Amino acid sequence: MSKQYEPIRIGEKFAKIPDLWKPRVVAEMNDYQFKLVRLEGDFVWHSHADTDEAFLIVEGELRIDFRDGAVTLGPGEMYVVPRGVEHKPFAASEVRVMLIEPRGVVNTGDGDTLERTAANDVWV
Amino acid sequence: MSKQYEPIRIGEKFAKIPDLWKPRVVAEMNDYQFKLVRLEGDFVWHSHADTDEAFLIVEGELRIDFRDGAVTLGPGEMYVVPRGVEHKPFAASEVRVMLIEPRGVVNTGDGDTLERTAANDVWV
Repeated sequence: MSKQYEPIRIGEKFAKIPDLWKPRVVAEMNDYQFKLVRLEGDFVWHSHADTDEAFLIVEGELRIDFRDGAVTLGPGEMYVVPRGVEHKPFAASEVRVMLIEPRGVVNTGDGDTLERTAANDVWV
Repeated sequence: MSKQYEPIRIGEKFAKIPDLWKPRVVAEMNDYQFKLVRLEGDFVWHSHADTDEAFLIVEGELRIDFRDGAVTLGPGEMYVVPRGVEHKPFAASEVRVMLIEPRGVVNTGDGDTLERTAANDVWV
């Protein structure tokens, strides 16, 4: 037999995401998820008490502010925000990001916002 | 305070990896690791009984053979090989891959080879 399995094409997936700030799942690995999200503007300060969170930049530039500084990420760069560390993503213009984190993590963590909180487990 | 944190620059990290087939850790997220590996040629048939394994292609083309078919991955494409599924990576010319998997996974899994088995937890 010679079945052709389909790759997950990240660029094509991004093209199907209409909204900013809404992470979309593209793959699962054990109890972790790979999510794509388009960001532009300011997010809310928040932290995730129970998990680290990995950011991998596909396109554009993302700044992640911390209470004591910041990291600026471009395409092909990544950063892992440790659990419990308050952070606030910011993008002056649109940035396309892959997030890797456990299934069930809420994007706004402990940040008390309704506007930015996105539904979980939505695939693209 | 305004500390500048350093991103993990994937391209720069690859430039510091001298050997093929030797995964190098660049980041950890909880008990998972992000590893970079340069591959060229044929790997061994193997599987990982206890974990899925994610492949994300940075540069080049990787074919992953399965017993019943294959998937061919280019830059910006990914695939998650499910736990227990026998697979054999192959690259006609050099490919640069990010692997995401739990800390402690042996690259050759249950494949009985000494030649290709790499040390774990080596960072770059």
